[in-house]
Amino acid sequence: MTDFGEQDTYVGAMKGVILSICPEAKMIDLTHRIPAQDICAAALQLSSVYAYFPPETIHLIVVDPGVGSQRRSIICQVENHTFVCPDNGLLTLVVQQAPIEASVAIQNKTYFLPQVSHTFHGRDIFAPVAAHLANGIPMSEFGPLVTDLRHLQLAKPDISESQIKGEIIWIDHFGNAITNIGHQHLQIIDPELKLQINFRDQQISRLSESYSTVPVGTTLALISSFDYLEISVNQGSASQICNLSLGDSVLVQPIIATTTTTRR
Amino acid sequence: MTDFGEQDTYVGAMKGVILSICPEAKMIDLTHRIPAQDICAAALQLSSVYAYFPPETIHLIVVDPGVGSQRRSIICQVENHTFVCPDNGLLTLVVQQAPIEASVAIQNKTYFLPQVSHTFHGRDIFAPVAAHLANGIPMSEFGPLVTDLRHLQLAKPDISESQIKGEIIWIDHFGNAITNIGHQHLQIIDPELKLQINFRDQQISRLSESYSTVPVGTTLALISSFDYLEISVNQGSASQICNLSLGDSVLVQPIIATTTTTRR
Amino acid sequence: MTDFGEQDTYVGAMKGVILSICPEAKMIDLTHRIPAQDICAAALQLSSVYAYFPPETIHLIVVDPGVGSQRRSIICQVENHTFVCPDNGLLTLVVQQAPIEASVAIQNKTYFLPQVSHTFHGRDIFAPVAAHLANGIPMSEFGPLVTDLRHLQLAKPDISESQIKGEIIWIDHFGNAITNIGHQHLQIIDPELKLQINFRDQQISRLSESYSTVPVGTTLALISSFDYLEISVNQGSASQICNLSLGDSVLVQPIIATTTTTRR
Repeated sequence: MTDFGEQDTYVGAMKGVILSICPEAKMIDLTHRIPAQDICAAALQLSSVYAYFPPETIHLIVVDPGVGSQRRSIICQVENHTFVCPDNGLLTLVVQQAPIEASVAIQNKTYFLPQVSHTFHGRDIFAPVAAHLANGIPMSEFGPLVTDLRHLQLAKPDISESQIKGEIIWIDHFGNAITNIGHQHLQIIDPELKLQINFRDQQISRLSESYSTVPVGTTLALISSFDYLEISVNQGSASQICNLSLGDSVLVQPIIATTTTTRR
Repeated sequence: MTDFGEQDTYVGAMKGVILSICPEAKMIDLTHRIPAQDICAAALQLSSVYAYFPPETIHLIVVDPGVGSQRRSIICQVENHTFVCPDNGLLTLVVQQAPIEASVAIQNKTYFLPQVSHTFHGRDIFAPVAAHLANGIPMSEFGPLVTDLRHLQLAKPDISESQIKGEIIWIDHFGNAITNIGHQHLQIIDPELKLQINFRDQQISRLSESYSTVPVGTTLALISSFDYLEISVNQGSASQICNLSLGDSVLVQPIIATTTTTRR
Repeated sequence: MTDFGEQDTYVGAMKGVILSICPEAKMIDLTHRIPAQDICAAALQLSSVYAYFPPETIHLIVVDPGVGSQRRSIICQVENHTFVCPDNGLLTLVVQQAPIEASVAIQNKTYFLPQVSHTFHGRDIFAPVAAHLANGIPMSEFGPLVTDLRHLQLAKPDISESQIKGEIIWIDHFGNAITNIGHQHLQIIDPELKLQINFRDQQISRLSESYSTVPVGTTLALISSFDYLEISVNQGSASQICNLSLGDSVLVQPIIATTTTTRR
């Protein structure tokens, strides 16, 4: 996962380096379209996908606005997944889901390319380190243990008994707007999930199960496949149709019985 | 092949699931840029490419506007290729080219992920099913035989002895406009392919063999590499230069001898 | 590496052909976003990345505006890398870095697909040839030796003792503007690299080591990870902020001692 895009050969160079060191490496692209320098977006995307990979997977993430500065580079073991990345908060959400088993600061230049540039550590440091890890070099070889990883301050939903105030944190390729309100948050205010969702000047008065439960072109709210509240349009772009942007507020309230009766 | 785009980690999640079940899987991306929910485009693209893959290839196609509804999911064997996809017409053109050997409805939850979401069957059903197939689980294990697959009503060219009326069905990355008029249709109206092609207010009075037979910037018509009539500009975008859009009419007529004489 | 983009299945078709011939092939995408028909851009990108791949790598490059014409197709051995591509100058920069060991013109139709189209030699000629090479077929089997490869006339910087006049030759995904002025050129005019860089109506009065040595949003100049002079903005797009385009002039001059004193 990087923010390198696909027009240059930056990702290709990293893969060439990896294959040169570990010819058997099997490489999967998570995405290279993280918005440039957007560590929060990368942290979110990473946390939603890493657990679908097999045990012993090495996850290489390069979203690295601090490249060439004194920021640390780390290898971090979380359950049976290994992460190689700059220590800039990329793992903030991953380590909320599962405990860190060990982290080391990457320092041993034996495992870098012979020439290290000041602008492309993805190719010169992270890729060769990941490849040597894949070859079975133990984590402890790369540098000293560290415990004080950097964490991002990510917007958390504001939860009371009567409502949740969250925001839109991701808009996907289809225009679905994903919020920072989790399934478990919704259950706090109504275990049966009889909820109304307000955003901009619009209101949705129920949670749907899937896109196709409403007519084509209709706005709906549902629990996304990554367990967050999502605002969508069946076969359309909620982002465009409802004019939604990152950071927009979303308010969730229980539908109380009397209201329900009145509405009928 | 999906309509998931590349900015999210949806495709990555599917690949992680596949590798978790079938670590030896070799995965090739056909494209993830099918326009959102555009089953026709996917059917067209799929039919033009699948036969270039080796026997025993499993083709996994997720363009699935009906996800979460009662639409069926299928495994379909066509010659020695296996297709895993929603039963929404994606195979319409494939099964016109070669006979179906067997199809089953995907029902056996043993081969799904333990948690199945209502919005991402690509990850939770199609990917694990494809991976189990790759592991050698026989098709019959996944569900009952079915024969009544859904088919799309795709625009067919209107063919008479004196002309063919078709339309533009795909515009590629280069701006080449591909029509639904096949090589074999053209041969019906003139086996020697002495043809004139009309579209918008423009006329091309011959078929070219390749782009470079006309000067740079010139509009031409030729038989595309997938055997359809294509309108192109040598080293330019026919779509932009000729202002072509999907659905535009294209009329092909034989050039009769007298006309040819006059023109000389 | 191609200019095929990712919306069509052109790249997928090539990979299917390769796997059909060489099932063990390991394929890495360098990029498929070379601007359409832009041989210069492809030559530049290729030269910056190929050496990061393992010995014996076969590099398949299809940027081929002359497809279907009489232009030759070649296999070219440079050090321990093999290149398969049209003979249109794509290797111009590669062969400036290392000597050609041997080149052959691709002529032996035994190694083509049975049907060769006039518009897609990537699928019908280049992919199968690369796959047969990967299977160990010797270069000499594909056609006669050739020595007169085509070369592009690429813009070279104009270097005197007191200044270098170059231009912007690539703008990357981040908006970094890469020039055709190499590290070695800069050392000619001042071995200590005390330089000022002028472009448009702007001036940068030093070379930085990395992006993060200047405040966020500030324009800087540095030696890129591919050893060319690059104009960048820390965590921003130099292309947008400085309004830079391909072909813009860049002038580099030494900062002479007296000037430096005055400026202090």
